[in-house]
Amino acid sequence: MADIGPIVELSSEECWALLVENELGRLAVSIGDQPEIFPVNYAASDGGILIRTAEGTKLFGVTVNHKVAFEIDDRSEREGWSVVVKGHARTLEHEDEIAAAEQEPLKPWIPTVKRNFVRIEIDEVTGRRVRFGAEPEPDYTE
Amino acid sequence: MADIGPIVELSSEECWALLVENELGRLAVSIGDQPEIFPVNYAASDGGILIRTAEGTKLFGVTVNHKVAFEIDDRSEREGWSVVVKGHARTLEHEDEIAAAEQEPLKPWIPTVKRNFVRIEIDEVTGRRVRFGAEPEPDYTE
Repeated sequence: MADIGPIVELSSEECWALLVENELGRLAVSIGDQPEIFPVNYAASDGGILIRTAEGTKLFGVTVNHKVAFEIDDRSEREGWSVVVKGHARTLEHEDEIAAAEQEPLKPWIPTVKRNFVRIEIDEVTGRRVRFGAEPEPDYTE
Repeated sequence: MADIGPIVELSSEECWALLVENELGRLAVSIGDQPEIFPVNYAASDGGILIRTAEGTKLFGVTVNHKVAFEIDDRSEREGWSVVVKGHARTLEHEDEIAAAEQEPLKPWIPTVKRNFVRIEIDEVTGRRVRFGAEPEPDYTE
């Protein structure tokens, strides 16, 4: 069988390093059977993903005790990478947690006063790096 | 009440122009109540979103007759924008549809031979452009 190609699975350490380095991600939630995606600014902190949100937004409402997926990626002409987190989101309620969250370098996506934080506890993280290139020939049999 | 801030809702024409200009997006699907996100290369064509995928992938399986969300975004230091599509995904089955899809400039995210196409028929598209700036003061009352 032919080699699967230049796809590299990233270790959880590599995924975490990419999560720490970056600040724009996308949160996916399901409302009924309708998936929703929100671009969010985030901070990777204490083994979780921290997002700040305004009260009353969809994001705030649907992430309480909900399964979520969270994704970051980047690409150049020749390669791309992505990290996907699956986890559980909860809103921070304890004053000391909120005080700690307010110290994070967390720029809100929408510039309003936001004092609510959602934290994703990570159940699973996967990542891959892909080299873009010519496709293998359909009949390539080596 | 204070102005909500420098958020601009994009028209559907502006959203479509951004969809046509870009090529990397993220597809969100729900499997049971678990949201999943896949980074995908796409082409905006004939009022829909075209994605190429390998047979047997999750993407291929879950997008048949399924509700999906699809997102693109970009950001600079000072502003960001995002476009979110909600729609229904179906795999292309007619030979003429597949032949037309193969003419699209659609670079696969994973460089293997991919002859399956998923098309998202758009039910709704929304977009916004956000200027990043200082947050308003919490007690600003004008």
